[in-house]
Amino acid sequence: MKPATIRDPHPTIRRKGAVVEVLDQLALPGRIVYRRCDSAEKMATLIRTMVLRGAPLIGVAAAYGYALAAKKSSSPLALKRAAARLLATRPTAVNLRWGLERMSRAAQRYKGPRLFENLMREADAIRKEDIAANARMAAFGAKLIKKNSTIITHCNAGYLATAGVGTAVGVVRHAFRRGKIKMVYADETRPYLQGSRLTMWELMQDKIPCALLTDGMAAHIMKTEKIDAVFVGADRIAANADTANKIGTYGLAIAARAHKVPFYVVAPASTFDMRIKNGDAIPIEERSITEVLNIAGHSIAPRGADARHPAFDVTPARLITAIVTDRGIVKPANRRQVKAVLRRTA
Amino acid sequence: MKPATIRDPHPTIRRKGAVVEVLDQLALPGRIVYRRCDSAEKMATLIRTMVLRGAPLIGVAAAYGYALAAKKSSSPLALKRAAARLLATRPTAVNLRWGLERMSRAAQRYKGPRLFENLMREADAIRKEDIAANARMAAFGAKLIKKNSTIITHCNAGYLATAGVGTAVGVVRHAFRRGKIKMVYADETRPYLQGSRLTMWELMQDKIPCALLTDGMAAHIMKTEKIDAVFVGADRIAANADTANKIGTYGLAIAARAHKVPFYVVAPASTFDMRIKNGDAIPIEERSITEVLNIAGHSIAPRGADARHPAFDVTPARLITAIVTDRGIVKPANRRQVKAVLRRTA
Repeated sequence: MKPATIRDPHPTIRRKGAVVEVLDQLALPGRIVYRRCDSAEKMATLIRTMVLRGAPLIGVAAAYGYALAAKKSSSPLALKRAAARLLATRPTAVNLRWGLERMSRAAQRYKGPRLFENLMREADAIRKEDIAANARMAAFGAKLIKKNSTIITHCNAGYLATAGVGTAVGVVRHAFRRGKIKMVYADETRPYLQGSRLTMWELMQDKIPCALLTDGMAAHIMKTEKIDAVFVGADRIAANADTANKIGTYGLAIAARAHKVPFYVVAPASTFDMRIKNGDAIPIEERSITEVLNIAGHSIAPRGADARHPAFDVTPARLITAIVTDRGIVKPANRRQVKAVLRRTA
Repeated sequence: MKPATIRDPHPTIRRKGAVVEVLDQLALPGRIVYRRCDSAEKMATLIRTMVLRGAPLIGVAAAYGYALAAKKSSSPLALKRAAARLLATRPTAVNLRWGLERMSRAAQRYKGPRLFENLMREADAIRKEDIAANARMAAFGAKLIKKNSTIITHCNAGYLATAGVGTAVGVVRHAFRRGKIKMVYADETRPYLQGSRLTMWELMQDKIPCALLTDGMAAHIMKTEKIDAVFVGADRIAANADTANKIGTYGLAIAARAHKVPFYVVAPASTFDMRIKNGDAIPIEERSITEVLNIAGHSIAPRGADARHPAFDVTPARLITAIVTDRGIVKPANRRQVKAVLRRTA
């Protein structure tokens, strides 16, 4: 299997010596802006305010955040506090915890005079591993796509959600290069509009034929056009394959099942949380309702209106055709297969 | 059965002598503005640009538009042209055709010197009948609602979509006055945001507890909270009860079925199109993609992005628990029951 080798001109995160630079996703698609980050506190803010987002990328960013904490102090307590602060930024994406736990183990290993440099190198390694994991997922996933396929995707599971080519969109990009993609529909994904702002931008940069849908359109499109598959990313996958992903994913999965459209999740091993049995135990982040009541700073509802803002939902394993991981494909999506695939080395 | 008697302070359409005034729904919820209309051409523009919308209201407005044409010329050809112009504004809502056909029959009946005045009175009659039809639907529909219910609604099927208390929201208002409503969730309904701008405004005016959802949230809310029913309006109902309504309705119906939540449509007899057998024959309006690519004049996608904009979708009868009409309740939603209920006099 040849992994996907696509190089994006504007990496989501990059290291410049003792400083990390993060592509500001809130400025996209209008402007390419990098935000300088030299502390764990700053990184926590960048994650919390969604300057960067996407479960795999959050894992990498948290690792750098942890390393940056060691620039200020190498005391175990300071590092523990930094980890707690980073962990608290987003509760659903488990890659965050995964990255921090790995860094914490590295800190044990490297304690001594060059702790900061060693931790930055460990974060570099996590970033590079994510690039490699993305390439493998893209190659595994592209095999699931037939020639001349029309795909629906939700939110942004593209390169902007990772350090590499992307998860769900990475698969689509790889398949496109093999001439298999006719069309991609991107759900706009309110309230944050990751689909319209980020996924459409990525697809257009790659010259992949694409069109934007509002979140209510997918079922109608599935009914009236030939849709070959849905591909989405994931923020946390329970041991039984129940999958938390951006709000709207669950409704999309129900619609896909009703139309017999295969529904694929693409996520690296770091997105699996084997400590929890099923999706009911996945914490769902409730974000500020201001994000729902406003679009681009413009109020769209009456003054004083109430709203709900669960940022994620859980799609039960029974609605998932397969999960593409960097270690292979989990199919059918169940506890036994999750275990079997994750046991493999990447 | 006592019909619902709720008077809204800002009627959607009102006659002032030889002129019609239309509440500008594009200015809501921020400002209450009435647009003066003294010709069929003007009315066609108001309908096409969605200054007013909602199938029953479009029917009433088209009737006034037709009458206003007679102010300029009473020639059958001029009236026919005006009708054609009005009919072309929105292809999906059949109430438009229904109103114009009724006005055309009235024009036959009234031809002579006072044609304009007589046609304006006919339009008045249509408006008053819509008020009465809404009141009856509200009373019929409220019986379907159990005490302490939480309801989801989509788009705006409120008073703003009619000349009366509203269709789906009319039912909810009536039920609320009887102490049956605990909570209403309103889908924001992209791209036009009728849910956030109009339905939330109506519900808040009535002090009905309510919260806004983005269109991707309903399935998650159904799964994690107790939702008692979905109530929506309709733009055209085929003879077999297949129902066209605002884009997003179909996905909502699929989600409701998956969660065993009753799914109710509320629409007057004028929304039924007995000339077509099933939903496949309902024309679905495709509107400008500019409306999807922008929100409140603000671009939300990369420059040059493509999009889709089907303004409606069709929910098959098998997903509809019942249809509340002004002549009674169609249950089960099938051809035989549609016929039986519409045969009754209102």
